[in-house]
Amino acid sequence: ESNSNLIRATLFPGDGIGPEIAESVRQIFKVAEVPIEWEEHYVGKEIDPRTNSFLTWESLESVRRNKVGLKGPMATPIGKGHRSLNLTLRKELNLYANVRPCYSLPGYKTRYDDVNLITIRENTEGEYSGLEHQVVRGVVESLKIITRQASLRVAEYAFHYAKTHGRERVSAIHKANIMQKTDGLFLKCCREVAEKYPEIKYEEVVIDNCCMMLVKNPALFDVLVMPNLYGDIISDLCAGLIGGLGLTPSCNIGEGGIALAEAVHGSAPDIAGKNLANPTALLLSSVSMLRHLELHDKADRIQDAILKTIAEGKYRTGDLGGTASTTEFTNAICDHL
Amino acid sequence: ESNSNLIRATLFPGDGIGPEIAESVRQIFKVAEVPIEWEEHYVGKEIDPRTNSFLTWESLESVRRNKVGLKGPMATPIGKGHRSLNLTLRKELNLYANVRPCYSLPGYKTRYDDVNLITIRENTEGEYSGLEHQVVRGVVESLKIITRQASLRVAEYAFHYAKTHGRERVSAIHKANIMQKTDGLFLKCCREVAEKYPEIKYEEVVIDNCCMMLVKNPALFDVLVMPNLYGDIISDLCAGLIGGLGLTPSCNIGEGGIALAEAVHGSAPDIAGKNLANPTALLLSSVSMLRHLELHDKADRIQDAILKTIAEGKYRTGDLGGTASTTEFTNAICDHL
Ligand SMILES: CC(C)[C@H](C(=O)O)[C@@H](O)C(=O)O
Ligand SMILES: CC(C)[C@H](C(=O)O)[C@@H](O)C(=O)O
Repeated sequence: ESNSNLIRATLFPGDGIGPEIAESVRQIFKVAEVPIEWEEHYVGKEIDPRTNSFLTWESLESVRRNKVGLKGPMATPIGKGHRSLNLTLRKELNLYANVRPCYSLPGYKTRYDDVNLITIRENTEGEYSGLEHQVVRGVVESLKIITRQASLRVAEYAFHYAKTHGRERVSAIHKANIMQKTDGLFLKCCREVAEKYPEIKYEEVVIDNCCMMLVKNPALFDVLVMPNLYGDIISDLCAGLIGGLGLTPSCNIGEGGIALAEAVHGSAPDIAGKNLANPTALLLSSVSMLRHLELHDKADRIQDAILKTIAEGKYRTGDLGGTASTTEFTNAICDHL
Repeated sequence: ESNSNLIRATLFPGDGIGPEIAESVRQIFKVAEVPIEWEEHYVGKEIDPRTNSFLTWESLESVRRNKVGLKGPMATPIGKGHRSLNLTLRKELNLYANVRPCYSLPGYKTRYDDVNLITIRENTEGEYSGLEHQVVRGVVESLKIITRQASLRVAEYAFHYAKTHGRERVSAIHKANIMQKTDGLFLKCCREVAEKYPEIKYEEVVIDNCCMMLVKNPALFDVLVMPNLYGDIISDLCAGLIGGLGLTPSCNIGEGGIALAEAVHGSAPDIAGKNLANPTALLLSSVSMLRHLELHDKADRIQDAILKTIAEGKYRTGDLGGTASTTEFTNAICDHL
C-alpha cells in the first residue's frame, strides 16, 4: 500500500551497471528522507507489441501517470524490427527537451575549470526523423525536419529555464548559413521567443564556431539551445570538458509536465555486478528530478554531499582514478548528508 | 613572359586581411626560392553570370589550368540570387576533400599539447545539398545526400593519405546509429576501402562520442574521415584545440588532381590594412600546397621557419598575445630560412 504523503516516481534501473547505481540513489534518497516512493520497471525480455520495443506498456504508463521518473542506462538488444529504447521513450512520452547542466566539479581536475553551462537540446525531430530512402542505387537521402511548433516549444523552455535559474544569456546554435530554411526556421522561432524575454541576452552561434569556442573558452557560454543533432554533439562535447558522461546529469522534459531524468552513459557490461560503477551521473540526474519537483532543499543537500565527496577525493571510483567501490562512494555521500 | 622552369599557381589574395597575408606568402616564397609563379585573381565586384557568383570565370579557369592554388579569406557579399564564394569554388572545381592537418604548435601554449591529427572532410554533399523545402506551413525539410561514389572517393583519399604520410589509423566518424542508411552507406564505403589497406588500422566512432574523446584526449586520434557536416564541425573543434583557425592549414583536393589550399579563417575587416594580421594559417596552407606539389624540401624549410618563429615567441601577432606586425613576423620567418 502506498503512503499518500509520498510522491510516486518511476524508476528504470536499466541494464548492466544500472541496478547498482540505482541502488545508490535509493540509499541516498532514504538517508536524505526524500519523500519519494519508487515504482520500479525493468526493460522486458521480449518485444511488447503495444510499444514495438522491449519497453513494456506498463512502464510507459507508469511514467505517464507519475509524470516523473529516473532512468539508468538501457542497452538496446540487437535485432531488427524494433526501436531503440531511448528513442522509443522520447517518442512515446514526447520528451521534447533534453536538458544537461554541465559544470566543472570542484576538486576533479580536467583541462577546464571554468565550465558552467546548460545545453538544451530539441529531442524529437531534426535529423532523427528516421526518414531515409534509396531510390537510385548508391544515392541515399535522409530527411531533416524542423517544425515551428517544436522549435518554439524548446526555445520557450530554454528562455524560461534561463529566467527561472538566474541565467543571463541564451545562445541558439545553428548552421543556417548552409541550411537556411530548416535552421533558419529554428532561429526565427528562437528570435520570436527571445523578444518575450528582454531581460535575457540572446545570440546566435554557428555550430562549427561554437565547438571551436567551447574548447577554447567554455566560460563564454551560459544556456545553449539547439536542434536535435547539434544538441547530441554539443552536449557530449561539453560532458567531455568536465570529465565525461559519467559525471553529467541529464533530464528530459515532455509534454504535460513529464520529466524523465537519466544517466546518459552506457551500461558498462564489463564491470556490471562488480560494485565498481560510478553512480554520479544517475545521482546528479536524480537531483535534476528533485529540482523539477521543486524539492530544492533535498536537491541542494544531496548535490552538496555528492560534490563534497568527489572534491575530497578520498572515495572515488575507478573511472575517476580512485579505488572506491560503488558502495564506499555511496556511503561517503551519506556521511556528508 | 613566364619562366618555363616555374610552376604556375593561382593566388586568390581574398578580402579584408587577405592581401596582407598573401604578401607574406609571396615574400617568404621569394626568400625560400620556391619555383612558383603566381597568377593572381581577385573576387569580382559584380556577379559573373558564367559562375552565378562574384568569382570570375577567368579565376576558375586559372585554377583548372594550373591545377594548384592558394586562397585567402573571401567574404561573400550579402544579397540574394548568388552563391557563397566558398561553396561555388567547391562545386565548380569539384573539391571533394578538405584536408586539415592539426597539430600543437611547439611553444604556443593551449590546454592541449598532444594534438597531431588530420581531419579529412567530404566536401561536396551530405547536408550541403542545398535542397530544402516547405510544403506544409511551419514544417521545413532538408535533404542530406550521401552517395557511394563520393564516399568511396573521400575514403580512398583518406587511406591513401594515411599510407603515404606514415599514419597508422583511420577513424570514420558517423551517426549511423541514427542515420542508418545515409551514414551507413558512408561507413560501408569506408570499410570497403579499408580492406585494400590492411596495414592501416580502421575504426568507426560515433560523432558525439568522437567530440567527447577529442576534448578529453585528442592524442587518441590519427586520421579522421567523415561526411561534410561532421567534418565542418570537427575540423573547427580540432582547430580550437591548438589555438584556432588562425593557426590551421587547410587544403581542398579536387577531381583531376586539383589542390586549392586555403586559410579558413575570416577576412577580419576590423584589422584589415593595418599590418596586424597573423599570416600563419595561409602560410601553413601554402606549405600544404607545396607538399601537394611534392616540393618537400621547400615545404620543410618554410614550415620549420614558421614553427621556430612562433616557438621563440619574440615576434607574435596580436591574436597570439604578441605585438608584432604582419611584416615583423614575416621578416622573422625569413630570417629563419
Ligand atoms: C544512443 C543514441 C541514439 C542517443 C542519441 O543519438 O540521441 C545518445 O547519443 C544520446 O545522446 O542520448
Ligand atoms: C562558411 C561556411 C559555408 C563553411 C562551411 O560550412 O563549409 C565554413 O564553415 C568552412 O568550414 O569552410
